[in-house]
Amino acid sequence: MHLLSFDPRAFRWSGIAGQKYKSGSGDARGMGWKGVSRWVLARPEAIQADYELRYFEIEPAGYSSLEKHRHVHFVVVLRGRGRALVGKRVVDLSPLDALHVPPLTPHRWLNESGEPFGFLCPVDRARDRPQPIDDDEWELLRANPVTARYVF
Amino acid sequence: MHLLSFDPRAFRWSGIAGQKYKSGSGDARGMGWKGVSRWVLARPEAIQADYELRYFEIEPAGYSSLEKHRHVHFVVVLRGRGRALVGKRVVDLSPLDALHVPPLTPHRWLNESGEPFGFLCPVDRARDRPQPIDDDEWELLRANPVTARYVF
Repeated sequence: MHLLSFDPRAFRWSGIAGQKYKSGSGDARGMGWKGVSRWVLARPEAIQADYELRYFEIEPAGYSSLEKHRHVHFVVVLRGRGRALVGKRVVDLSPLDALHVPPLTPHRWLNESGEPFGFLCPVDRARDRPQPIDDDEWELLRANPVTARYVF
Repeated sequence: MHLLSFDPRAFRWSGIAGQKYKSGSGDARGMGWKGVSRWVLARPEAIQADYELRYFEIEPAGYSSLEKHRHVHFVVVLRGRGRALVGKRVVDLSPLDALHVPPLTPHRWLNESGEPFGFLCPVDRARDRPQPIDDDEWELLRANPVTARYVF
């Protein structure tokens, strides 16, 4: 049995250190990111499961890479208010809202609020690497007034 | 893309109906349960993942079956205060505390507070069925003053 005690003031779990969202800075088109951190609450090897459970937090004005991959996301918001570009849509997210990102769907998480925005994100243990979106996807999202401002 | 909007007043997600915790009443020794409901937020087939994400809620004075299984739990508390019997230990849980239950470890969740106690529980898509604990385990937990009261 292993307990990760949560400190509501710090909004952090005991014994779990924050990590960079990604090792690289994201040089490929759209793969840039800013002010995103990652806490791995449960590693598959450590807990003996086929999933990994991560908590991501985005600072005000931060954003994740605009990317896609075969593995899906199903996130549950824990803190703050954020926005997600998912496919052709943009949705606003509040605590405990849950959002499914289907396979190979372009997506980006953004925090346009003044407070941290954080969410749980379980993923399959066996999964592909994120990839930049295609030229066609890029152009369509740039041409769409709903999504254009999130395509950079 | 699929969004499950959360209603903080009702503490429920749009379009997700509550279900009974289990279809049976739990006639085997220790398998009884009371006041537990289940909401499946993400089905593996529906979201195309190898995990399922459930939310369980236990009413005041409610409890789950005392059981074990090979698949692990890694729960994250979302609401209220609860208690968990896990192996030989009893731990108190508050919002966003996270707890790992290793393979084949006897466990039971209880709500001894006056408010609902709820937690997220991702599990592997491929998993074994819960089973009652063994005679030896039963006797040890009954003989242990820390756990005795939760063994019924």
